Amino acid sequence: MSLEEQIETIARQAREASSAAAQLTTAVKDRLLTQMADRLEREEVEIQKANAQDVEVAKKNGLSDAMVDRLILNQKRIHEMAQGLRDVVTLSDPVGQVVKEWERPNGLHIKKVRIPLGVIGMVYESRPNVTVDAAGLCLKAGNAIVLRGGSEAIHSNRFLGDLLRAVLSEQDINPDIIQVIPVTDRRAMEILVRQTKFIDMMIPRGGEGLMKWMEENSRVPVVKHDKGVCHVYVDKEADLKMAEEIALNSKVQRPGVCNALETLLVHETVAKDLLPSLIKRLQEAGVEVRGDEAVQAIVSGAVAATDEDWDAEYLDLILAIRVVPSLEAAIDHIDHHGSQHTESIITKNEATAQKFLKEAGSSCVLWNASTRFNDGGQLGLGAEIGISTTKSHAFGPMGLEELTITKFVVTGAGQIRE
Amino acid sequence: MSLEEQIETIARQAREASSAAAQLTTAVKDRLLTQMADRLEREEVEIQKANAQDVEVAKKNGLSDAMVDRLILNQKRIHEMAQGLRDVVTLSDPVGQVVKEWERPNGLHIKKVRIPLGVIGMVYESRPNVTVDAAGLCLKAGNAIVLRGGSEAIHSNRFLGDLLRAVLSEQDINPDIIQVIPVTDRRAMEILVRQTKFIDMMIPRGGEGLMKWMEENSRVPVVKHDKGVCHVYVDKEADLKMAEEIALNSKVQRPGVCNALETLLVHETVAKDLLPSLIKRLQEAGVEVRGDEAVQAIVSGAVAATDEDWDAEYLDLILAIRVVPSLEAAIDHIDHHGSQHTESIITKNEATAQKFLKEAGSSCVLWNASTRFNDGGQLGLGAEIGISTTKSHAFGPMGLEELTITKFVVTGAGQIRE
Repeated sequence: MSLEEQIETIARQAREASSAAAQLTTAVKDRLLTQMADRLEREEVEIQKANAQDVEVAKKNGLSDAMVDRLILNQKRIHEMAQGLRDVVTLSDPVGQVVKEWERPNGLHIKKVRIPLGVIGMVYESRPNVTVDAAGLCLKAGNAIVLRGGSEAIHSNRFLGDLLRAVLSEQDINPDIIQVIPVTDRRAMEILVRQTKFIDMMIPRGGEGLMKWMEENSRVPVVKHDKGVCHVYVDKEADLKMAEEIALNSKVQRPGVCNALETLLVHETVAKDLLPSLIKRLQEAGVEVRGDEAVQAIVSGAVAATDEDWDAEYLDLILAIRVVPSLEAAIDHIDHHGSQHTESIITKNEATAQKFLKEAGSSCVLWNASTRFNDGGQLGLGAEIGISTTKSHAFGPMGLEELTITKFVVTGAGQIRE
Repeated sequence: MSLEEQIETIARQAREASSAAAQLTTAVKDRLLTQMADRLEREEVEIQKANAQDVEVAKKNGLSDAMVDRLILNQKRIHEMAQGLRDVVTLSDPVGQVVKEWERPNGLHIKKVRIPLGVIGMVYESRPNVTVDAAGLCLKAGNAIVLRGGSEAIHSNRFLGDLLRAVLSEQDINPDIIQVIPVTDRRAMEILVRQTKFIDMMIPRGGEGLMKWMEENSRVPVVKHDKGVCHVYVDKEADLKMAEEIALNSKVQRPGVCNALETLLVHETVAKDLLPSLIKRLQEAGVEVRGDEAVQAIVSGAVAATDEDWDAEYLDLILAIRVVPSLEAAIDHIDHHGSQHTESIITKNEATAQKFLKEAGSSCVLWNASTRFNDGGQLGLGAEIGISTTKSHAFGPMGLEELTITKFVVTGAGQIRE
């Protein structure tokens, strides 16, 4: 079988399995998820053996320690994956939910009902736990999924895929609801993103290179999970103690993720009161501060920020700081340099906050809270497959509901159109 | 200015204007729509003059009478366009609507709020009224729109675009909220669908060729408005009189539209009772009937259906009829030959109906009603920009709500993540 045939077969099998996935009852889906969780823990040793192959290759290929660490599945991480599946069991099933219901003057009764999307193609990098997390969420939302992880995690991903499929098979359920592309050949992805007859949505999670590639090559609708150039704006009427805590938390609590703070904007009237103490604490936490001229005039030890800094997603212990003359200037900066991901305003003035919340064009805007809350779990969606930066289908964290679509169900009594 | 620069400029201007569009109040938008409606009626004669240029070219180029008719803007149609805008005034504004609202244990208050999509690229064929209809809906939903109609309607579309823009300008509102691509060069579209920085969604309405082209070429997310291979399934427990009326209405009330019936499926136990009278009435209405062997055995005068008939969107007075042994066979036929558009079941049995409504994978499924009701106006959405066949963002009729997306608005009191 050629690679073309192999990938097309996987996609076609997923389409066929998607009908079965869509009809599974909540009870069956929850039982499957629980069995998958149990099995992950039972086969802990075997998972680590498969994973060790990836780790060995990664080390041989000279991957950085950070990259190798992301790849490792130790006992703790395997238990977290299992717990993740059990958490999905506790979430309510979106399939069949009636979003709206109304009646027309001619007596037609209309319902807008949630249905699964169908087949989701998921493309992601390194972390093998995504294989289990994404498969679990897609299963609960009634979808079939085709998984394409990074080549460096191929042994882990294949093993995890087989394990999840075995649970489906044992329950006499079509295992093709979950499929892992078993080859690392880059061409497999090229073929995958052209299966418009079989795949309804591609969800890529990864770096900018992957996003550009998907945009250029996918013929299937893509919901991107692109970068987060996130801002905190400290208004002239901010509680400066609160601003300090939020800026610090947004930057250092977990700097390597997409909702971490990258650029701090400070109103000029409070810059002198806020920055010395804040920058001291940032530096103590290991953060390199890059500031505009106003910032450099206030504190020593701030590197001069260049134009590139305002557009940078550092994902690291680096922070750009800019002093702005007004709320409007802050919104304008975000408009030009942000990535429509996450922005927070710190202010005591409600009108100022409302203007910011309305005009900042990002998927999550916060008032007096850390940017780190833009997360499906933190916002109360239960769990997320990622944070969409595409302004169609779902914008922001995608939970179970966002893995569905709606259809119209119409009940009549013989109505015809005049 | 090269064509590349010209189209990119249009797209960039639309992006810049989209911020203004998003901030317009409902009152201002409604006033603008009313003024546009008034102006259409006031400039009726000038519109017809511009339109006459298109009609003249069309006739010279030998377009069919049907095509020329679609192109014509007479007094009645201009009034209908104006009335369409006034109807949009009566619809409630989706922008700012709070879809959901909840509170987290840590006190964070979360709202999911409707916001405009941003910039919509609309590609459509012949009928110039779409220029006004689409612009009106997009304006009310707070979006900027770039319109690309068929080359045969270029004079009409340019004139209508200028007219709508003049109303914006007179009110000191950025006219680039509405832009018509002024050239017919096919390359303009190639450039347009690559403006991923400026355009959020492409909405194509037209034939299969356009859909394939968009799928292959667009780098912007596409919500397709593809064909409707729609079915009515007459169950063994159907009210046969009702079935006859619904089948007839679904086929002949307006055969040239996407929600018209194309294939009738009849349970074998009622075929003999239903078909003779129904086919007689269909034929009296000018419908050519193409049937499988079972149909041909019951009535004379039915042409033998070929495999292609089951996949055909005739958009004409032709109907394929197939006798099936069961509900499951009907669903299976729809699954393999339908286009996930509109399906209706006629039955008195609720369990049968529920199974069909659940398992038929189309954007609109009806029980005891004509397929012709799958329409934004008929379903109560108020108006529609079209019927999406893409299973992401919006599936089925797209009204004002479907021209928006949501963002998360979070209000805190200094919360940080532990």
